[in-house]
Amino acid sequence: MFRKVLIANRGEIAVRIIRTCKELGIKTVAIYSTADRDSLHVYLADEAICIGGPLPQESYLNIPAIISAAEVTGADAIHPGYGFLSENPGFAEICTACGMKFIGPSPEAMVLMGDKAKAREVAVKAGVPVVPGSGILRNVQEALKACEEIGYPVLVKAAHGGGGRGMRLIESPDEAETLIATAMAEAEAAFGNGEVYVEKYIENPRHIEIQLIADGHGNVVTFGERECSLQRRHQKVVEEAPSPFVDETLREKLSEAAKKLAEYIGYEGAGTVEFLVDKDRNFYFIEMNTRIQVEHPVTELVTGKDLIRYQIEVAAGEKLDLNQPTLKGHAIEFRITCEDFEKDFRPTPGKIEKLLLPGGFGVRVDTHIYEGYSVPQYYDSLLAKLIVWGETREEAIRRGKRALSEFIIEGNLKTTIPFHIKLLEHENFIRGELDTKILETKILPQIKTV
Amino acid sequence: MFRKVLIANRGEIAVRIIRTCKELGIKTVAIYSTADRDSLHVYLADEAICIGGPLPQESYLNIPAIISAAEVTGADAIHPGYGFLSENPGFAEICTACGMKFIGPSPEAMVLMGDKAKAREVAVKAGVPVVPGSGILRNVQEALKACEEIGYPVLVKAAHGGGGRGMRLIESPDEAETLIATAMAEAEAAFGNGEVYVEKYIENPRHIEIQLIADGHGNVVTFGERECSLQRRHQKVVEEAPSPFVDETLREKLSEAAKKLAEYIGYEGAGTVEFLVDKDRNFYFIEMNTRIQVEHPVTELVTGKDLIRYQIEVAAGEKLDLNQPTLKGHAIEFRITCEDFEKDFRPTPGKIEKLLLPGGFGVRVDTHIYEGYSVPQYYDSLLAKLIVWGETREEAIRRGKRALSEFIIEGNLKTTIPFHIKLLEHENFIRGELDTKILETKILPQIKTV
Repeated sequence: MFRKVLIANRGEIAVRIIRTCKELGIKTVAIYSTADRDSLHVYLADEAICIGGPLPQESYLNIPAIISAAEVTGADAIHPGYGFLSENPGFAEICTACGMKFIGPSPEAMVLMGDKAKAREVAVKAGVPVVPGSGILRNVQEALKACEEIGYPVLVKAAHGGGGRGMRLIESPDEAETLIATAMAEAEAAFGNGEVYVEKYIENPRHIEIQLIADGHGNVVTFGERECSLQRRHQKVVEEAPSPFVDETLREKLSEAAKKLAEYIGYEGAGTVEFLVDKDRNFYFIEMNTRIQVEHPVTELVTGKDLIRYQIEVAAGEKLDLNQPTLKGHAIEFRITCEDFEKDFRPTPGKIEKLLLPGGFGVRVDTHIYEGYSVPQYYDSLLAKLIVWGETREEAIRRGKRALSEFIIEGNLKTTIPFHIKLLEHENFIRGELDTKILETKILPQIKTV
Repeated sequence: MFRKVLIANRGEIAVRIIRTCKELGIKTVAIYSTADRDSLHVYLADEAICIGGPLPQESYLNIPAIISAAEVTGADAIHPGYGFLSENPGFAEICTACGMKFIGPSPEAMVLMGDKAKAREVAVKAGVPVVPGSGILRNVQEALKACEEIGYPVLVKAAHGGGGRGMRLIESPDEAETLIATAMAEAEAAFGNGEVYVEKYIENPRHIEIQLIADGHGNVVTFGERECSLQRRHQKVVEEAPSPFVDETLREKLSEAAKKLAEYIGYEGAGTVEFLVDKDRNFYFIEMNTRIQVEHPVTELVTGKDLIRYQIEVAAGEKLDLNQPTLKGHAIEFRITCEDFEKDFRPTPGKIEKLLLPGGFGVRVDTHIYEGYSVPQYYDSLLAKLIVWGETREEAIRRGKRALSEFIIEGNLKTTIPFHIKLLEHENFIRGELDTKILETKILPQIKTV
């Protein structure tokens, strides 16, 4: 096992990793920017080194400074957390070259899964369903044929550009020819090339993902799914486990698919395979995250497994001595950020003058804030993750409401606590009727005007 | 279900009860003494009423003031918590007479179990083992015969007095006659009556208790055992579930015995049946607590059941829709008090200038303190209960150490956090070798001198 781990991150995830290291008897090194001198991760680690200025490029993305800190302190492993350098294969390579274990998958796996097109190809080879799509189509006839093959509704998209230009939703064959021609013309005008491709349009999909950990001995263990459909600008806002939509059959299929992909690429470490799931329970691989995720605690609460522990243990070469865990109860995570949800989630960093964390049965808080802490403006606006557990989804929702109602963060900042309380009262959330668009198109407009 | 519950208590247990009431959609009324104006339970409840001065007799034991507060606020039930009026049958009767449901057992059950001699008699009738003992013995010959029948070692005790006078431990027949005579002479001298009785001496017993809840429909559900052997002056200091000593067979026997007793007396509500267990796994009923206990959270963490919720539901007449829960993992509770353990646990109430609660996976904190809170001198010294959960006892111990190490309570007060950290490093604790004397006779002397 490692003697000393440097945590190349900040905020709640640095605190989270330090906690498990302490429980495993591993010494910890915190790194921090000049803006994070008073951060909790600095206080909790055994050693702490300031590695640069407040901008991420100066500190948390500053590879030479991080490697130096590891060398100076004699760290034999580096945990990247999420964000920052966690999916940077170059950083992983440099760690290895400098004799430190990067706690994550191989650089090759990161490169493979980091490129969406390659990841899709690999998934197809591994026998994992992807959103059906065509190759590049040069004219209307080719495109019409592809639409027929894939089946309506389809999306026709510009092959050489993005941002929604040259993109059309085609719901039936009647309108196909016209819309394809429009899309091609628009693509030609915007990108100087009219070529398009066609993709199956998944209506109101859910975002459901499978957590897995793979060791270096050929074992891949899955930990059930997380429902992460509630998103704003493609950012997850509330996550839960299990999904209110997933039954045992679908869970097995999703887990099997995730496992197949991990096995196919010889994956090692903690990873998440993300899927879109349609209303008929068809599922399509979208991408794989090759790191621990923000929302991992909901899985920990329903499985009883410390995922960071297993992540560290497999990085140290240990064998996973674990069957697929059974799920017990229901967990929901609320991302509490310093944003003003009534003003389009504008960030409001500031000083916390008064803090009261919720507690009691079924309540977990992962945070780096404390009374008197000033939230720096340079980083993401996550203040705390509130994770509640209940025997049932209903109990978890009631517990979430209770915990949110006693959570006090006061000072010259606003938080999303009031947003989460309103979300828990929204009928679609209560009924578990979720998809990746519903927060932005329905729930947010409704709770803003209440 | 109740509309509004008055909590006739203070501190962490008042906060605990308010939390479950909120989750059940029940309004809450806090009562408080003038010393508790700034207490967290006052802030968290929907309503709060000051009922008197700082002394318990003026407020938390002041029955007329409490009943008035319930009447004024329209509470339809009263939860007594633990301590104060929780085991006062008179209070329960008055609640009922005033049309408020007392959340606890019937006054008759409280009377029966409140009298140790009667409780013992009832246990014998119910077929539950008790510590074998004689009736009153008038002379040495009678006493010798009783010693033989019970089997050595035995305790001979003065029949009409206490405090250790007229008491002798007799380990073998050789010394019996002399020691009995000495005890009788001492009893005669001290209490004017030489009569004695003889009781089986249980060597190094463990204190192990069974949690149960009974509804008004004849259902009694047990929730496994708690190991509460670590005591100082008969006060529990650290509790865990399950007991490191109890195997499945013993668990079933203890649970069966607890259930038999509850059924025999027609018990309703949450209760705990306490046993002494000797090294050969013989067990003896000692008493039954007719209320929720300080240490109930360890049971909640290994069963996933909210005990306060079931307590309230059965008080409201609901049927227990529940099988005996399976136990998962291991939980340990640390009672964090404002006491100076190096100065014989002298209480040190004071103001909390800096507070950092531990958090993360497997960590629960039940507390009423916050940064800036002044601990009043009038009540018990409990500041917080830290409860940790792990997949195994070893993991729970490691997590406990980690959580204690990050727990900061600073100000002009001392806490028992350093004591608990040292306890977790003691070999007897680590090995689970516990009995009701070991803390005072072995562990405390050793960790004080380290």
